[in-house]
Amino acid sequence: MTKNLNYNNEFIKSIAEKFPTPFYLYNESTLRKNAQLFNKAFEWNKGYKEYFAVKANPNPELLKILKSEGLGCDCSSLSELLICERLGITGEDIMFTSNDTPQAEYIKARELNAIINLDDITDLQILENCAGLPDVISFRWNPGPLYNVSSVIGNPVEAKYGLTSEQLIDAFKAAKSKGIKQFGLHTMIASNLLDENFFVTASKSMFDMITKIKQKTDVNISFVNLGGGFGIAYKPDQKPIDLIKIGTEINTEYTKSGLEKFSPLSIFTESGRLVSAEAGVLVTRVIHKKNTYKKYIGVDASMANLMRPGMYGAYHHITAIRKSDSENCSMETVDVVGSLCENCDKFAINRELPVLEIDDLLVIHDVGAHGHSMGFQYNGKLRCAELLLEQSGNIRIIRRAETFEDYIATLNINKW
Amino acid sequence: MTKNLNYNNEFIKSIAEKFPTPFYLYNESTLRKNAQLFNKAFEWNKGYKEYFAVKANPNPELLKILKSEGLGCDCSSLSELLICERLGITGEDIMFTSNDTPQAEYIKARELNAIINLDDITDLQILENCAGLPDVISFRWNPGPLYNVSSVIGNPVEAKYGLTSEQLIDAFKAAKSKGIKQFGLHTMIASNLLDENFFVTASKSMFDMITKIKQKTDVNISFVNLGGGFGIAYKPDQKPIDLIKIGTEINTEYTKSGLEKFSPLSIFTESGRLVSAEAGVLVTRVIHKKNTYKKYIGVDASMANLMRPGMYGAYHHITAIRKSDSENCSMETVDVVGSLCENCDKFAINRELPVLEIDDLLVIHDVGAHGHSMGFQYNGKLRCAELLLEQSGNIRIIRRAETFEDYIATLNINKW
Repeated sequence: MTKNLNYNNEFIKSIAEKFPTPFYLYNESTLRKNAQLFNKAFEWNKGYKEYFAVKANPNPELLKILKSEGLGCDCSSLSELLICERLGITGEDIMFTSNDTPQAEYIKARELNAIINLDDITDLQILENCAGLPDVISFRWNPGPLYNVSSVIGNPVEAKYGLTSEQLIDAFKAAKSKGIKQFGLHTMIASNLLDENFFVTASKSMFDMITKIKQKTDVNISFVNLGGGFGIAYKPDQKPIDLIKIGTEINTEYTKSGLEKFSPLSIFTESGRLVSAEAGVLVTRVIHKKNTYKKYIGVDASMANLMRPGMYGAYHHITAIRKSDSENCSMETVDVVGSLCENCDKFAINRELPVLEIDDLLVIHDVGAHGHSMGFQYNGKLRCAELLLEQSGNIRIIRRAETFEDYIATLNINKW
Repeated sequence: MTKNLNYNNEFIKSIAEKFPTPFYLYNESTLRKNAQLFNKAFEWNKGYKEYFAVKANPNPELLKILKSEGLGCDCSSLSELLICERLGITGEDIMFTSNDTPQAEYIKARELNAIINLDDITDLQILENCAGLPDVISFRWNPGPLYNVSSVIGNPVEAKYGLTSEQLIDAFKAAKSKGIKQFGLHTMIASNLLDENFFVTASKSMFDMITKIKQKTDVNISFVNLGGGFGIAYKPDQKPIDLIKIGTEINTEYTKSGLEKFSPLSIFTESGRLVSAEAGVLVTRVIHKKNTYKKYIGVDASMANLMRPGMYGAYHHITAIRKSDSENCSMETVDVVGSLCENCDKFAINRELPVLEIDDLLVIHDVGAHGHSMGFQYNGKLRCAELLLEQSGNIRIIRRAETFEDYIATLNINKW
C-alpha cells in the first residue's frame, strides 16, 4: 500500500540538489494545520491549551510556529526550559513535567513562572525547599491498576511516573495547607495510541478523580492535563484518529461530570507526535546496493539520524523518488539500511520498493516527532541538518548538519 | 550476589566530592591489563594485532593508552578515522571496517593508508573509482547459514554485513587480477558471547575458508581478522571467558590447518568490550526516592549517559556507596531510574540494593565499552564528563561535561 507524500517528486529532487542529503524537511503548513486541529477539537473549552511536547522536536523554529498558533510548551528538562526562555515562552505557556527532577530544573521553572507538574508526593517539599512554592501546582496521577492498556507507555503499575490515587489526596491536602491557590491534575499513560475510546475513557477517569479530590480535600481543581499519547497512522493501512470526534466526546463526558458548575476546568493536552510527526520527512540518498542472503539498499542516513526503526522496530513509510521516473518499474523486496556497525541500523526490513539505483532518493515519512531529537553519535556518526519549508514556499536551514568539530567539542584532542 | 568493585568506597566518595556527578571513571591499569591479555593470548602468532573497536569508546586518551600497548584501531566511520589521524595512528595500525560506506570515508582511509576491509563484492570497484586501490585488501565474510548462533549480532543470514562464501571467491579473484598484493579475510558474527568454544570453532571455519580460497583462486591470504564478540561477565554469576585458553585452542586449530607452511597468517582480533568495558564505571548520585506501586531510586544519570539498560534491557551491576557506611544495613528491591521522560530510562529493575538515602552514590559497573559513546541528548539531556585514573594515581578530566551551549550548537537560537 502507498501513503500519500505531500510533495511532488521534482520538488524533493530540486531540494536534494541544493542541500546535501540526508536532511530533515519540515512543513510549516502541516504543522500549523495540526496545531489548529487541536484548538478546533477543544474549542468548546474556554481555557484549552495544547502544550507541545518539546522532547518530540525541540527545534526553536518549530516552537515559534506553534507558539504563534497559541500552543504552549511541555518541558521535561533544563535544556528545554532554556530554549523556551530564549524564545520568550514563559509563565502559563510552559508546563514543566519531569520526574526524578534535579533541583536546578525546579529553580529555572520557578524563575520562568512555569506551571509545575509534580511527579511525586515528596516533590512538594523538595520544590518548596529549593525554589519556593508557586501559586499554582499540578500533580501527575498514575492510575496504576485502573488501567492495563496495551500500547501504553508500559503497564502503569510498572511506570515510574506519577502519584498513586491515595497519594494524590494527601498531596492536594498538603498543597492547600501550604497556601497554594490554584490546582491542576495531570496524567500521561498512553503513547502512540490509535484507540479513540481510550482517550475518552481516560478523560472520564480524570473527571471522576477531580470530583473525588473535591469531595475528600475541598480542593477545586481548575485545570486538567489529559496528557498526550495520540497516535498517528504510520502505516498506510492504519486509520488516523479523529481528534475532533475525541474532543466532542470528551466534551460530553465533561458535561456529564457536572464539573462545569462547581469546578470549571481548563482542559490541557500535551501531544508531541500528533502535532509534528507528519510535518517532517527525512530525505536520504541511495549510496549502495548489495545482494547477499538478502537484498540491501544502503542509504546515507543512519540510526544517528533516526532511531525509531532500529530501536523500537517502528514502521516508517518510505517513498522512493527515482532519477528516471518511468511509470512502470518493477518492485523488489529489500532491507533499507544505514551504515552503522549495528545490525539494527535498518530503516525497513523486507519492504517492497521500486527497483532502485545509486543516487535515487528515499523519503522517510512521519519523522517530525522523536526523529532528529532522538539521534545519537554512536560510531562517530554525525546528525544531519533540518530544513523548513515555509508557507511562502521558501526553504530555510533551521539546523545545520554536525561537523567533526562538533563531535569532538568536549574533548581536548586539538591540543595534541 | 555481589561483584567486586576495584575501588574502595572512600576513594569514590573523594572523587565525587571533587567532580560533579554523574561521571565516567576509567582505570588506566585495567585498560592496560586487558590490552596485555590480548597480546599474551596470541603471543604464539608473530603478526598478531588486536584492533580496538573505536566505536566502543572513542575517547582519544584511552586510544593513546591502547596504542602504547601495541593495539591498533578498528574504525568504522570518518570521525573515527579523523580521531586516529589526530593521534598519529595510521597505516596498518588502522583496520577500516565499514558497510554502506560513503566515498569520503574510503578516501580518508586510503589517505591514512589504513587496511581497508570491504563489506561487499561491489566495493572493490567503488573503492578503485573513488580512491584508487591499495596494495592490501581484506574482505568481510558473512558465513550465512553456516552459523545460527544465539546471542550473535543476529542470524548471519539476516545480517547486512559481509560477502557470501561464493562471492568471496569471486572477490579475491577480482582483487588479484587488479594487482592487489596482500590479502586478508575478516568476519564478525558474534557480540558479547561467553561461549569459548564458539570462538575456536569460528576460527577453524576461517582457516578452512582460507584454504578453500587458496585452492580456488591461488590467492595467499596473509592475515585473518577473527573479529570480536568476546563477552564479559556483566552479571556476578557469569563466568568470565578465558582468553588465554581461547588463544591456545585457536593456535591448535591453526597448527592443524597446516596454513603456517604454505600461507602463514597474521592473526588479528577486533574487540571493544573485552578491552575496555571493565575499565569503566559510571558514578551517579541518588537525587530522589519514590514509593508508589514500586520503590524507585532516582539518580542524576540517565539514558543520555548510558543506553544499554534502557535500550537492550542489559544488566549492569550496581554497587551502592552510602554516606553512612555502617556494616549492617537492610536491603530492599528497587528500580534505579534516570530522569528521562521515557519509561525505559531505568538502570536496574527489581534490583536488591542496600536502603539508600539522598546523596548516596551508585557505581554502575562495566560501562567502559558502548557506554558514553552510545549516549544521546533526547529530552535535552546532556552527556557527562569522563575521568581517567592514571596509573600514577592522578585523576584527569579526559572529556568535559556537555553544556547547554553544546546542545544548541547547531541551532541559530542565539540570534533571536
